[in-house]
Amino acid sequence: MGKRLIILGGGFGGLYAARELRRAPLDVTLIDRRNFHLFQPLLYQVATGSLSPADISAPLRGILSGQKNTRVLLGEAADIDPQARRLILKDGAAFDYDYLLVATGSKSSYFGNDSWSERAPSLKTVEEATAIRHKILYAFEAAERAGVPSLRRAWLTFAIVGAGPTGVELAGALGEIARHTLKHDFRSIRSEDAQIFLLDGSSHVLPSYPEDLAADAERSLIRLGVQVRPGVRVVGVDANGVTFQNQRGESECLIAKTVLWAGGVTVTSFGRALAAKTQAPTDKQGRIRVNPDLTIPNWPEIYVVGDLAGLDGKDGKPLPGVAQVAMQGGAYAAKAIVRRLDGPKQLKPFHYFDKGDLAVIGRGAAVARIFGAHLSGLLAWLVWLFVHLMYLVQFQNRVVVFVQWGFQYVTFSRGARLITGDIKEE
Amino acid sequence: MGKRLIILGGGFGGLYAARELRRAPLDVTLIDRRNFHLFQPLLYQVATGSLSPADISAPLRGILSGQKNTRVLLGEAADIDPQARRLILKDGAAFDYDYLLVATGSKSSYFGNDSWSERAPSLKTVEEATAIRHKILYAFEAAERAGVPSLRRAWLTFAIVGAGPTGVELAGALGEIARHTLKHDFRSIRSEDAQIFLLDGSSHVLPSYPEDLAADAERSLIRLGVQVRPGVRVVGVDANGVTFQNQRGESECLIAKTVLWAGGVTVTSFGRALAAKTQAPTDKQGRIRVNPDLTIPNWPEIYVVGDLAGLDGKDGKPLPGVAQVAMQGGAYAAKAIVRRLDGPKQLKPFHYFDKGDLAVIGRGAAVARIFGAHLSGLLAWLVWLFVHLMYLVQFQNRVVVFVQWGFQYVTFSRGARLITGDIKEE
Repeated sequence: MGKRLIILGGGFGGLYAARELRRAPLDVTLIDRRNFHLFQPLLYQVATGSLSPADISAPLRGILSGQKNTRVLLGEAADIDPQARRLILKDGAAFDYDYLLVATGSKSSYFGNDSWSERAPSLKTVEEATAIRHKILYAFEAAERAGVPSLRRAWLTFAIVGAGPTGVELAGALGEIARHTLKHDFRSIRSEDAQIFLLDGSSHVLPSYPEDLAADAERSLIRLGVQVRPGVRVVGVDANGVTFQNQRGESECLIAKTVLWAGGVTVTSFGRALAAKTQAPTDKQGRIRVNPDLTIPNWPEIYVVGDLAGLDGKDGKPLPGVAQVAMQGGAYAAKAIVRRLDGPKQLKPFHYFDKGDLAVIGRGAAVARIFGAHLSGLLAWLVWLFVHLMYLVQFQNRVVVFVQWGFQYVTFSRGARLITGDIKEE
Repeated sequence: MGKRLIILGGGFGGLYAARELRRAPLDVTLIDRRNFHLFQPLLYQVATGSLSPADISAPLRGILSGQKNTRVLLGEAADIDPQARRLILKDGAAFDYDYLLVATGSKSSYFGNDSWSERAPSLKTVEEATAIRHKILYAFEAAERAGVPSLRRAWLTFAIVGAGPTGVELAGALGEIARHTLKHDFRSIRSEDAQIFLLDGSSHVLPSYPEDLAADAERSLIRLGVQVRPGVRVVGVDANGVTFQNQRGESECLIAKTVLWAGGVTVTSFGRALAAKTQAPTDKQGRIRVNPDLTIPNWPEIYVVGDLAGLDGKDGKPLPGVAQVAMQGGAYAAKAIVRRLDGPKQLKPFHYFDKGDLAVIGRGAAVARIFGAHLSGLLAWLVWLFVHLMYLVQFQNRVVVFVQWGFQYVTFSRGARLITGDIKEE
């Protein structure tokens, strides 16, 4: 029996660590709340009716079934006893470890207004994606049946809070749904009359992108009919819509039956428990400030990778919570653990190799920063397609997603326009 | 403005009626609780992780968007005032009609024990299919984590109640999941050790099929490790499993954490309201005994097609509740309404053309009765594949399902093995 490594989380960080360890002399246990790896960057396509959840998911057991040193368990981490090197799951089961790799990710943040989540779902899980799909499609159905014009307008008004990549991608997809996908489907309304608002506190969309690309993205959004409202501060979300302070400091109320949240992320409750029990320093988002080798200060056997890890990049700014950082962190931590098996060693610190950023706005419209070059338009869109297909974990997913995208490109249709779950709307 | 026809339900009956009317001088409204047509015959493949809900669904609006005389509304019929020719929806909205075509289908029947549905979900809706998928996959996960052998065995025991086509297809798919799909995925259990029981009150499986085909199907099931228990009467379903009276009249208890219901169907609450308000005669399953032209006696403007219609075939037995009967009934009723627009006419009664029956047990194993011929094995399986692909309403679905089946055939894998929804299990 090798030393016991527990990997918590089967997202990009945990999965890439596990795969790196396929021939390691370790007894690896991967624990996740879900039985599948989810390709988060395409989750907005589930929410907007292009893809099914299974198209962007791969069963963790299936991916790792050939890896004899690894077992996969369904379970949710609740607490930790770092002195005893013991992990406690929500159902009370306890697991001892020699090394622990924490890759539990982040959850959506409503900046202290968690009650808004009922009205304004965010996009982190498969269930939230199908709930958003339900909300978007149902809004058009309700508008078609609404008799009163003001009610019809409220159903045809969509507000998206947060203009980072997720908010921009949601807004762009909504614009395409209204202008193309549903164009001939209704008799009482014109789906093109839908109004889509994109609200953000920054002065422009995609604040983390270079300014020229952000400006290109904004132009593409405007072409799809999206109304960008920068510099606003949301102060309320209720059954009527969103209330916010605009750039001039005035209070405005946007009447919208559909509000979607792409506002930001925070740490999970296990992340907080881990920080508390290890007395680890945290940054203002609650991320654990890790050592340059991704371990927690004073706990060399606990590695933290992905969204929960707070580490500064070469430019002195914290590394962003994106898939690339998690993948590279997972692979680095896995290699570091293997090298330490032969005894203490001085290891090179984790170095994030920034390949770039990609965001898609719509058909033929995307912005990309790749190895330093700035691209936008059709070329960026083709790069986006290629990169996203290639990073899908399973070959089967790549083929199915490619087929679905092909149909969507030719027909403007979206294959997964299902309203599922309870239909209970006001 | 033409005369107003309301079609209730977008299943096989309602959709085939609507499509038949694409050039009719009628003002057609199709009302369904769902925004999509569901290809029910493949729903068991969603429940067993082969396909996604969207693969076998097509948005009703999308299918009918080019049909200018037809509008689609999301709504659920609650009541009817046949004297006033008025339909009332659950949300209180009322719609007047000149002709009404009722194709609301059936729902699962627990023979008066509706409380069993909590423990033993049935397979009628997309939500039920994903709930069954959750139950099946979670059972293997829980078995992997169970410490006590008796608990492990309970999680690895599956009981399916009802050995009609749905029950047989579920049992066959479960056998393949246990023996092939999950074979290398677990470390503490052997998925092949799963026990699958198929219970039915009849003396053999597929009671509505010719006896030679039923015997072939049973042999295929046994090859997949399914244990067939004919002649039993289920008397209870609870957290421990199923209690039933066996063939010798003894009471038996089968300890199984997973019980699935494929027991039978009954009419929906709107079907009952319709029968009551029109004082229509019903059969013992609650179906409305329609005239030979599919109208309700004394209500020549109300047509009933599909599972809600009770009509005897040439052999004097009631027509079965299958897709073919609904499709042909819908098309017949649509044509009859168009012909009557020019004034009263004597119309030929509805004649059901029985093309046959198909049930699949597993890879290369199916039984088929086609135009009188009996087939089983590989040839029946190929016919089954071809027929099901061809009857999928959208070309895109055909391609995606074909790709998924191709991968499954080559790799023995199943692409949609997601446990979604709340994970709360004892």
